[in-house]
Amino acid sequence: MTSCCLLALNASGGVTSPNGLLEATLDISNIGRPVYSVNYKGKPVILPSGLGFELRGDSDLLNGFEIVASDTTDFHEVWQPVWGENTNIDNTYRELSVSYRQKDTGRQMNIRMRVYDDGVGFRYEFPQQNNLVYFVINEEKTEFAMPSDMTAWWIPGDYGTQEYEYTECKLSEISKLYPDTLELNSNQQDFSRTGVQTSLQLKSDDGLYVNIHEAALVDYPCLHLNLNEENLTFTSWLTPDAEGAKGRMQAPCHTPWRTVMVSDDARQILASNLILNLNEPCKIEDTSWIHPVKYMGIWWEMIGHDKPWAYTFDLPSVQLGKTDYTSVKPNGVHPANTANAKRYIDFAAEHGFDQLLIEGWNIGWEDWMGHRKDYVFDFMTPYPDFDLEEVNEYARSKGIKIMMHHETSSSIRNYERHMEAAYNLMNRLGNDAVKSGYVGNIIPVGEHHFGQWMVNHYLYCVTEAAKHKIMVNAHEAVHPTGLCRTWPNLVANESARGTEYESFKGNSTSHTCILPFTRLQGGPMDYTPGIFEMDMSKCSDNKHHFVNTTICRQLALYLTMYSPLQMAADLPEVYEQFPDAFEFIKEVPVDWQHSIYLEAEPARYITVARKDKASEAWYVGSISANDRKSKFSLDFLEPGKKYEATIYADAEDAAIVTNPQAYKITKKKVNSKSQLELNSVAGGGYAISIKPLN
Amino acid sequence: MTSCCLLALNASGGVTSPNGLLEATLDISNIGRPVYSVNYKGKPVILPSGLGFELRGDSDLLNGFEIVASDTTDFHEVWQPVWGENTNIDNTYRELSVSYRQKDTGRQMNIRMRVYDDGVGFRYEFPQQNNLVYFVINEEKTEFAMPSDMTAWWIPGDYGTQEYEYTECKLSEISKLYPDTLELNSNQQDFSRTGVQTSLQLKSDDGLYVNIHEAALVDYPCLHLNLNEENLTFTSWLTPDAEGAKGRMQAPCHTPWRTVMVSDDARQILASNLILNLNEPCKIEDTSWIHPVKYMGIWWEMIGHDKPWAYTFDLPSVQLGKTDYTSVKPNGVHPANTANAKRYIDFAAEHGFDQLLIEGWNIGWEDWMGHRKDYVFDFMTPYPDFDLEEVNEYARSKGIKIMMHHETSSSIRNYERHMEAAYNLMNRLGNDAVKSGYVGNIIPVGEHHFGQWMVNHYLYCVTEAAKHKIMVNAHEAVHPTGLCRTWPNLVANESARGTEYESFKGNSTSHTCILPFTRLQGGPMDYTPGIFEMDMSKCSDNKHHFVNTTICRQLALYLTMYSPLQMAADLPEVYEQFPDAFEFIKEVPVDWQHSIYLEAEPARYITVARKDKASEAWYVGSISANDRKSKFSLDFLEPGKKYEATIYADAEDAAIVTNPQAYKITKKKVNSKSQLELNSVAGGGYAISIKPLN
Repeated sequence: MTSCCLLALNASGGVTSPNGLLEATLDISNIGRPVYSVNYKGKPVILPSGLGFELRGDSDLLNGFEIVASDTTDFHEVWQPVWGENTNIDNTYRELSVSYRQKDTGRQMNIRMRVYDDGVGFRYEFPQQNNLVYFVINEEKTEFAMPSDMTAWWIPGDYGTQEYEYTECKLSEISKLYPDTLELNSNQQDFSRTGVQTSLQLKSDDGLYVNIHEAALVDYPCLHLNLNEENLTFTSWLTPDAEGAKGRMQAPCHTPWRTVMVSDDARQILASNLILNLNEPCKIEDTSWIHPVKYMGIWWEMIGHDKPWAYTFDLPSVQLGKTDYTSVKPNGVHPANTANAKRYIDFAAEHGFDQLLIEGWNIGWEDWMGHRKDYVFDFMTPYPDFDLEEVNEYARSKGIKIMMHHETSSSIRNYERHMEAAYNLMNRLGNDAVKSGYVGNIIPVGEHHFGQWMVNHYLYCVTEAAKHKIMVNAHEAVHPTGLCRTWPNLVANESARGTEYESFKGNSTSHTCILPFTRLQGGPMDYTPGIFEMDMSKCSDNKHHFVNTTICRQLALYLTMYSPLQMAADLPEVYEQFPDAFEFIKEVPVDWQHSIYLEAEPARYITVARKDKASEAWYVGSISANDRKSKFSLDFLEPGKKYEATIYADAEDAAIVTNPQAYKITKKKVNSKSQLELNSVAGGGYAISIKPLN
Repeated sequence: MTSCCLLALNASGGVTSPNGLLEATLDISNIGRPVYSVNYKGKPVILPSGLGFELRGDSDLLNGFEIVASDTTDFHEVWQPVWGENTNIDNTYRELSVSYRQKDTGRQMNIRMRVYDDGVGFRYEFPQQNNLVYFVINEEKTEFAMPSDMTAWWIPGDYGTQEYEYTECKLSEISKLYPDTLELNSNQQDFSRTGVQTSLQLKSDDGLYVNIHEAALVDYPCLHLNLNEENLTFTSWLTPDAEGAKGRMQAPCHTPWRTVMVSDDARQILASNLILNLNEPCKIEDTSWIHPVKYMGIWWEMIGHDKPWAYTFDLPSVQLGKTDYTSVKPNGVHPANTANAKRYIDFAAEHGFDQLLIEGWNIGWEDWMGHRKDYVFDFMTPYPDFDLEEVNEYARSKGIKIMMHHETSSSIRNYERHMEAAYNLMNRLGNDAVKSGYVGNIIPVGEHHFGQWMVNHYLYCVTEAAKHKIMVNAHEAVHPTGLCRTWPNLVANESARGTEYESFKGNSTSHTCILPFTRLQGGPMDYTPGIFEMDMSKCSDNKHHFVNTTICRQLALYLTMYSPLQMAADLPEVYEQFPDAFEFIKEVPVDWQHSIYLEAEPARYITVARKDKASEAWYVGSISANDRKSKFSLDFLEPGKKYEATIYADAEDAAIVTNPQAYKITKKKVNSKSQLELNSVAGGGYAISIKPLN
């Protein structure tokens, strides 16, 4: 499969990173296949690996190439994201661009590679030409030949969902463990026993951290990887359309960037801006309406407490425009009702939140899932027990905006048909954020969540929303690839197993210790932390398990899971039981001047310090999969300045399942010379606010 | 296959038509399969034939039923169409409704049958019930067991096109002749060697005319038929989606009507309103904006004269929003330019036309077809040589409206995304009719022109257009099924081989003699008659054939091909050569008080008399496939009243190909006692205007 790539290169087409530690090459094999390789501090990261495409109905773009030109340029900029982990982002790289020409066909394919200190990105470019105009990709054949049997943290490749637990194993063990990783959900469709998703986190025995992903996924199918266990080489595996095609292309065009991040310091993998930097600058001229959001929701009542989104239990199915909801018997336990919404609004306003998500407000939930129902929602009409205008007015009077909820049930045409009117309704109501969802199989049938058709749809929603000054938080969409740089109104995605799974059966204690290495590389996640009641049997008679976390870990997640959109997911009455711990959720910022990863190891622990964008206060969050003593210096504080730290830490006898709500809050004077040592129990963590005293 | 249906019926569930001549039954076979039969004047029309469905992932709805209830009712109304062949339409039927219950599953399926004097319609209805809510049809199994080896006029079953010549043969010969009927076009996808489309015209050796079609096709796949040649039984064959499913249903729901028209007088088949009557009444409250239209077009210059829709020949492909049209070299022969449009407007206004169609006005035509290009048109942006505002203003100043052209290239999502803006543009410009087109394979891939997904789309376009007071003339859409009763802004469709094929390679002389029996049953066709220059070598250097018609046949088509939308398709400079013949096109109405079919035989000849809706004038049109003497009485004229007939007839030496432009115009005093004898040459015809003298 990759033998061609292991041959000696004809000539060296190498370029080194600005700091000289990373070297990448673009070259050609003796059968004319484009190849590349990556080295870091003299060690191989990616062995010489083949590039190219198998096409449909046309000869492949794989072999028989010659290099006709190559060019190297340097680039440096510092740019300011609308929101983010840092006010300034450095974007410095050396670029190597190589023009390949297929000798038999005359077709041209260029490869552009950007080499950063912390990784490389490369993409295929197809310039305008007469003999390659429209083409259909059968499979992209980008290889990643790994230099050793590395440890991988992976989820199974899938065309429809990323909502899996991560598996940690050697590359050579993937196929053996694969069957155990599969977990059915409503979108699930795996494709290969050695298929994995990106971002894929890897670590070599000698301590090299490598991460493979993609950046700027636009009008192209989502990238997965398929491993050849014999030679430890991954090959790209795209998501097909209904006819099995994997990308319908029209030159001039290019693919997304394929990225390889590398460092011998795990913290640098978390701190990397490679994915963002490879995306295009912001295309929204006036971004003043885009802002971070801290919100509560009528949500955990359904997810955790098994209450219904639906208004009635009496109908086997409903038909919008035909079913008369005013004549059916309400189930009486539907949380998205006017009175309950006002209760949440009161609480959210009292505690300084920005928005309230309300799910189940609109008609259609009685049979929304699993039926491939085309006209499933109209995104406009509230249930009889929910007075949208009254709730909205009440919210506005209290300074709260309603976060709209557009569950599409993956009926895509139906959503696009109603989207303009639904966005207009939001504009009229003065609301500026929507949570959208894509549960279930896609309509049109045969399309997948991660295919080119859907990738196009998700971005369409974001760009149309931008016209309406609406921020998008899309769930069950394709994995993020840094597009939030270009479209910062894409404030968050789900695209991983979130807190909701704590309600279904629980997440492992390592889960949130790996997500920042993998899922978060492409953009923020609406992980919905803040669960304080861990005993699910208190939430629902049907549940008998615990949320695998301590309260302090829940606080720490507001730091370790960076997002400009953060939820306090539990119920008001639960927070009222723990007002001092809740204080941290109320106080923690959601936008930052500067972030420093203090400690990190994939799936083990993460400690991060972040400086508030609006003040001189710092916040530290730490989570750990196992019992752990954390130790770090506060040398990031301004020298000579005095601060008071408020530390929210697991109590000594805290423990997930048996004693998760045990915490202690202590205050301590600190300065830039202070050292802190703090313990986290397994599945626990801590959170600190550090405020200047003068 | 149909043995179950040939068994004796358990009990008689018969109902006769209002005039007692037609009898239909709904019953059950000894294995519990619903069956029906149709007799006319004591002769079998449809032998006992099975009904039901094969389902996906569920047991079938085919056998094991019992009858739990049946009911008979009478209905009579006279309704007025917004436009049509007659001012008043009689809708009188007896209805038999039978409730079937599947004994093992308890599932209910009702069959409602309406028996008219000229045929029957029946449909399946699925009431709301707990054990049949969502279901997926694998195949509908509605049988039509024909009583003898009838003559059929058929086109091959196809999921994507109806643009075929009709074949005339015995049922038993269909599979033998099938391969010769296939003719590739850009949408073509046949499915069975014995597959045929509806409306299917049949005739028995003893002179019974039978026609099978469907009415009110909404949210369901298009009906085709597949013949079992051994027992001469057709079975329904629906159009599949990308996963092969043939209808995704949610109870309560029903199928379209399956129709069997029958008469021993071929003229009654043409006069039947069965299909319209089976559709629901008009759903548009204010229909004052819907009106018949006589139009010219910048169209035959491209179709017949091989001029380009595209603006430039210099680009291998274009990308909307990226390609800079102002910097490319125009081809200079693009007819949709401002000056040429004004020339057409001048001519159309001078001769009393209502509208001018302009094709090729908008950017994107350089590579619009055959590439499955998603963002292919924006329906908004004119080419640099076409000043839309100037042309529109010029047209309005002359009393002409521009008929907008929305070729979708079958990129459905793209059209729906732009539709609202495109309709808004039309509203702003004051234009009220759009010709839409669906050339090429459907995007999303795997869907077909005639599948449920697309059926849903076509109707969506019509209902959205109604909100904008826009009339729709959709080409390459699914076959019409009388929906223009419900949505009279659906003023025409193509859905058959139109005049454009005269330019490609010619239509047979029988083609327009069969279309009114078949294609026109479901609604008007935008056949685009009025071609006066038959020698295609005078139109294009690449063409060396003739339009198979005489000039007088072209005039007659305005009568025999009923449509409220009629084009004069040839070029102004051609009409200027034949001002006296052109006078008929200028004068002939497009909306009628009353229509009488005087002579008819499928694929042989049609003579029809129509009374102008706005005056006391009558018009007669006649076409014939072969040399023929036509003879009829003018007893439809008002007794005692004097009229002058102006007769446009083939000259004695007229002949298609060799002398098609030979005609003679004569005037004659006539009254209700007059008899006329007129000759048509093969492929010829005549047209008459009969105007009162006092």
